[in-house]
Amino acid sequence: MDKAGAALPVRILGIDPGSRITGYGVIDLIGVKPCYVASGCVRTSEGPLEQRLAQIYAGLSEVVGLYKPTDTAIERVFMAKNVDSALKLGQARGAALVCMANHGLSVAEYAARRIKEAVTGQGGADKEQVQHMVTALLTLSATPQADAADALAIALTHAYTNNAVPSTPRGRGRRTSTGRWRL
Amino acid sequence: MDKAGAALPVRILGIDPGSRITGYGVIDLIGVKPCYVASGCVRTSEGPLEQRLAQIYAGLSEVVGLYKPTDTAIERVFMAKNVDSALKLGQARGAALVCMANHGLSVAEYAARRIKEAVTGQGGADKEQVQHMVTALLTLSATPQADAADALAIALTHAYTNNAVPSTPRGRGRRTSTGRWRL
Repeated sequence: MDKAGAALPVRILGIDPGSRITGYGVIDLIGVKPCYVASGCVRTSEGPLEQRLAQIYAGLSEVVGLYKPTDTAIERVFMAKNVDSALKLGQARGAALVCMANHGLSVAEYAARRIKEAVTGQGGADKEQVQHMVTALLTLSATPQADAADALAIALTHAYTNNAVPSTPRGRGRRTSTGRWRL
Repeated sequence: MDKAGAALPVRILGIDPGSRITGYGVIDLIGVKPCYVASGCVRTSEGPLEQRLAQIYAGLSEVVGLYKPTDTAIERVFMAKNVDSALKLGQARGAALVCMANHGLSVAEYAARRIKEAVTGQGGADKEQVQHMVTALLTLSATPQADAADALAIALTHAYTNNAVPSTPRGRGRRTSTGRWRL
């Protein structure tokens, strides 16, 4: 809240990095309501590894320049399928994270289970459920691409965690005396 | 070679990325002789992951700005100890590689075995042997720190691979009719 008591504007960029496709999703918090701003993917082409990572960096730089997020969030990785996929994912994460830091943004991390729980109410939800609920929660007219949907889910999780927005479609939040939601 | 027949100057930056310590080593090729220019480490402090990766990026940016390499090289990773270390190494590699690409540099990759073989003559050499031979090959007055020595070994491997410098202390190269070395 600012000195006049009005909520400061919050714009959250969620990022789902990958070596081939990096999803991004941008939402605004207007009062307690998360509102869709934009989402999409940065796709890397064939070419040397450092060039593909630079494409992730440049693509996300463009997103930051265009939408000027105040907050950014990413999925925390506990487990990857195997050593090779962990290395590839790590490289993409490294490019994305360093891009955010170079733009002066700090990055919140959320476990996959926490993200699924926040948007579907179930920590074990599958990708389709996440896509479905992101579409419903943000009242989108079409289902976003899978990686963009994951990025929007990460952004929503950040909104629910830090800004007292009701966290699940079941409306498990409790309104405080000021009319805001407490989880 | 340029049009006048003189070898173009080659300055190689070798990088050994790590989540805590990133080693770097810079060598010049003057004719066929690799000459030591600089080496050192970028150490990351405690703090959020994206800040630590930004320290790697900033540290290497400073090295590139200071020494203006024409070539860069890094170790290719086939295997990491486990998924967790692969993810951490991947993130550090991502920060380093995107830094090079953003400075317009392409990055050559060499397998660990190739690097060890190039500087010691044995693909199965241990770290101490690599440190010892890097010190000898570059006629250094003191042994460099382990990560800096690895980075110098990577730079030397690039020199041996691309610039026809004799590759091992055994002098396995063969001089061509123009007086340059062929491996």
